[in-house]
Amino acid sequence: MPYTAQDWLISAALLQFPGTLDDGRHVNEADVAHWRDVFAEVRDAGFSDVDLFDGWVRPGDLSSARLTALKEAADDVGVGLPAISVVRSSVIDAANGQANLDYSHRTLEAAAALGSRVVSVGLHQALTPAQKAQLWFWTVEGYKDPDEREAWDLAVARLRELGKHAEELGLILSLEMYEDTYLGTADSSVALVEAIDHPCVGLNPDMGNLIRLHRPIENWEAMAEKIMPYANYWHVKNYQRDEDIARDMYVAMPAPLESGLISYRKAFQIAIANGFQGVICCEHYGGDGLSVSASNQRYLREQVLPRSADYALGESRVRQN
Amino acid sequence: MPYTAQDWLISAALLQFPGTLDDGRHVNEADVAHWRDVFAEVRDAGFSDVDLFDGWVRPGDLSSARLTALKEAADDVGVGLPAISVVRSSVIDAANGQANLDYSHRTLEAAAALGSRVVSVGLHQALTPAQKAQLWFWTVEGYKDPDEREAWDLAVARLRELGKHAEELGLILSLEMYEDTYLGTADSSVALVEAIDHPCVGLNPDMGNLIRLHRPIENWEAMAEKIMPYANYWHVKNYQRDEDIARDMYVAMPAPLESGLISYRKAFQIAIANGFQGVICCEHYGGDGLSVSASNQRYLREQVLPRSADYALGESRVRQN
Amino acid sequence: MPYTAQDWLISAALLQFPGTLDDGRHVNEADVAHWRDVFAEVRDAGFSDVDLFDGWVRPGDLSSARLTALKEAADDVGVGLPAISVVRSSVIDAANGQANLDYSHRTLEAAAALGSRVVSVGLHQALTPAQKAQLWFWTVEGYKDPDEREAWDLAVARLRELGKHAEELGLILSLEMYEDTYLGTADSSVALVEAIDHPCVGLNPDMGNLIRLHRPIENWEAMAEKIMPYANYWHVKNYQRDEDIARDMYVAMPAPLESGLISYRKAFQIAIANGFQGVICCEHYGGDGLSVSASNQRYLREQVLPRSADYALGESRVRQN
Repeated sequence: MPYTAQDWLISAALLQFPGTLDDGRHVNEADVAHWRDVFAEVRDAGFSDVDLFDGWVRPGDLSSARLTALKEAADDVGVGLPAISVVRSSVIDAANGQANLDYSHRTLEAAAALGSRVVSVGLHQALTPAQKAQLWFWTVEGYKDPDEREAWDLAVARLRELGKHAEELGLILSLEMYEDTYLGTADSSVALVEAIDHPCVGLNPDMGNLIRLHRPIENWEAMAEKIMPYANYWHVKNYQRDEDIARDMYVAMPAPLESGLISYRKAFQIAIANGFQGVICCEHYGGDGLSVSASNQRYLREQVLPRSADYALGESRVRQN
Repeated sequence: MPYTAQDWLISAALLQFPGTLDDGRHVNEADVAHWRDVFAEVRDAGFSDVDLFDGWVRPGDLSSARLTALKEAADDVGVGLPAISVVRSSVIDAANGQANLDYSHRTLEAAAALGSRVVSVGLHQALTPAQKAQLWFWTVEGYKDPDEREAWDLAVARLRELGKHAEELGLILSLEMYEDTYLGTADSSVALVEAIDHPCVGLNPDMGNLIRLHRPIENWEAMAEKIMPYANYWHVKNYQRDEDIARDMYVAMPAPLESGLISYRKAFQIAIANGFQGVICCEHYGGDGLSVSASNQRYLREQVLPRSADYALGESRVRQN
Repeated sequence: MPYTAQDWLISAALLQFPGTLDDGRHVNEADVAHWRDVFAEVRDAGFSDVDLFDGWVRPGDLSSARLTALKEAADDVGVGLPAISVVRSSVIDAANGQANLDYSHRTLEAAAALGSRVVSVGLHQALTPAQKAQLWFWTVEGYKDPDEREAWDLAVARLRELGKHAEELGLILSLEMYEDTYLGTADSSVALVEAIDHPCVGLNPDMGNLIRLHRPIENWEAMAEKIMPYANYWHVKNYQRDEDIARDMYVAMPAPLESGLISYRKAFQIAIANGFQGVICCEHYGGDGLSVSASNQRYLREQVLPRSADYALGESRVRQN
């Protein structure tokens, strides 16, 4: 049975929860009580599922015993852990590509141990000092993937290797779209996932990453038509936007999912027509992202997702898990 | 009895529904099932009434049998059709003025056949190629009505002619305010409607059209005081706005009705003090306009419209139907 | 028992209610029925408490009999009056400093007569003509406190004098943060309140005033860590914001409390960790500020404030009343 508004898995991102404790230790070293408090805050905001964004805890770096404790903390609080999002750990990073690949493999194993369904990775790299100095890091240019066949081939090979590992573990791998990487446009993302050519590797069509830039952008609806056949997990977030080309002005601001530039009503129609049944993860930058995410979940369940299971579900090009 | 929050007619605009089908035909040629699906989506979003915006179906171009089928589709779904909005079909268009006038007459007849109460027309003309190339078409200048007495007289005469026809059919005609037309400012709009001087011809005080421009704007509250005595139908939408005159910067973004620049609480107080009892149509550009419109309807019913019928209703200068 | 989401005092600001009646008289001269109508509108919007912002009624200028009538109007409608906000009446105003001091004393006495708990004052002065000519007055520079020890000493002395008076009356005094005054940064605000050094004088950490400016701003979270130990009343409002430093572009727009730049979830965690138990006043500029404030109150009670009284309350540096 396809998912409906009632049972579709919607997780909360943990973007607002820091990876460093007040005493300077990494949250991986925290007491289980700290993890439990975070899970409880997310649950109390209205979520029954959490995306283990690795800017918070890094499951790939936890011991087996600590992983069990993390899972127990989630169980105690009553939240599921359907997904892990790995960010800024590109497998083609010039200095750390191999280390990031190893970490991604460990994260897949952690995901299996936690009973997750999907791991999301990307090709975006560390924020530059200039990016860190901005109110919003996306308002200045950052890292760019090189326009070199060799690097692209390496990305294909390493991501396919991760896809095979995911398959062995009963998981799927999702590739997060992000500007100036090989996953930076609809066409380049489709080209990459088609070159990887593995049923367990699809796209995380995080169009919010792309519509917030202070430069011309692709039309989101045209993008959605191209990428949704490959979607297998989805970071949903929205931005309001204005442009004044004659004045070289671009403005973008984090917005509730309902009232931003992307119509998630329409985007989900396109996704469902292309067989999407993946986990949805609510992200929101700036301010009280957790509360906005909770409002976003309500919007999705009340206005966007199908109310009954008798809808026409298209065929995806990738496995949905 | 004057309307209250419970029974005031609030329709949804169909701005997000395209006039062209996937197979290239106009939606006028669609199967009735397609029309029914659109009406059902609007109803499921929370509306019991629909504005037949003619960027979607063009009732004035439907045969009598197809008009009946359209009405039956609405009845089947359970939505009313209190209004038709005709856009970009100016009766003083240099090339198509007479054809637009004829079409407007046919639309009035269609409105009567559908049991509607009001038809909204305007003097805005087709978007320019430059406008179509922008993220938001209103960020560059478009068509302007000529500063010529002859053209203005023609507008007055033809709109009065439509008003008379509306009266014969038991309808009212509403003139949509729009920048750079004779309906582009509060004063020019009042001048036009007073020159037309027909009780069935009033204003559609669509101030949202005017506050989103990338240039200095009229104060909306001062506008409302001038135009509300003539309001007989109302496209409500809102924008958030910032200006930095010293930097020649203007920013405007579609916003929920509650949180944009115009206070609809205050605007309705002014409207009611001037006898307004017209149909309200929720419009919203960009993104999931239908869901935002549904939220806007809730806002109007919960926070803005009178809770009981014992309020002081002023006297309008035009018929409210 | 510390406050919870259910019983924390949250008042509505009256920013949208003008101080001048249609007939030109000041609202202080209005019939009691007018005051009652305003209180009823605020109550119907969802509030049980009102902040007597003195851009509307000026309690410090009401006679004893009229003050009683004002209190009775509030009682009749069923709203409490826990706070009075005095604005743009700086006690160090070059021309009117002594008059403003006298007025502030009278306002404290009025507050006691009304059964209020807190009076908020500030050092911001009258808007300049240039500020009044803008869409948003904060987009151009206004009055600045002088960089002179003598003026600062006078501010300290006069505000301490008001604090002593407040204490005698069983009240507390709160100092509103505002750009370009001695209360314009976190550090200067802490310095001022520490120099005043009176337990009944604390800060109104109105960070919304500071994050809307068209210039670089302090990080709100770093500010909150510094100022919250001194908070004893709180004007809460939020803005969405974008910057593009390379283009010298700053954009800020009034936003719902949930979805603006400041995370009030986090800000209240910091406040509570520093013993905050003060009255919360919902302000919102532009548009339907009262309805947005009502939504903001819901957000605070549903997502931000503690659900039960067993939370860890830190120790404040000032009295909370």
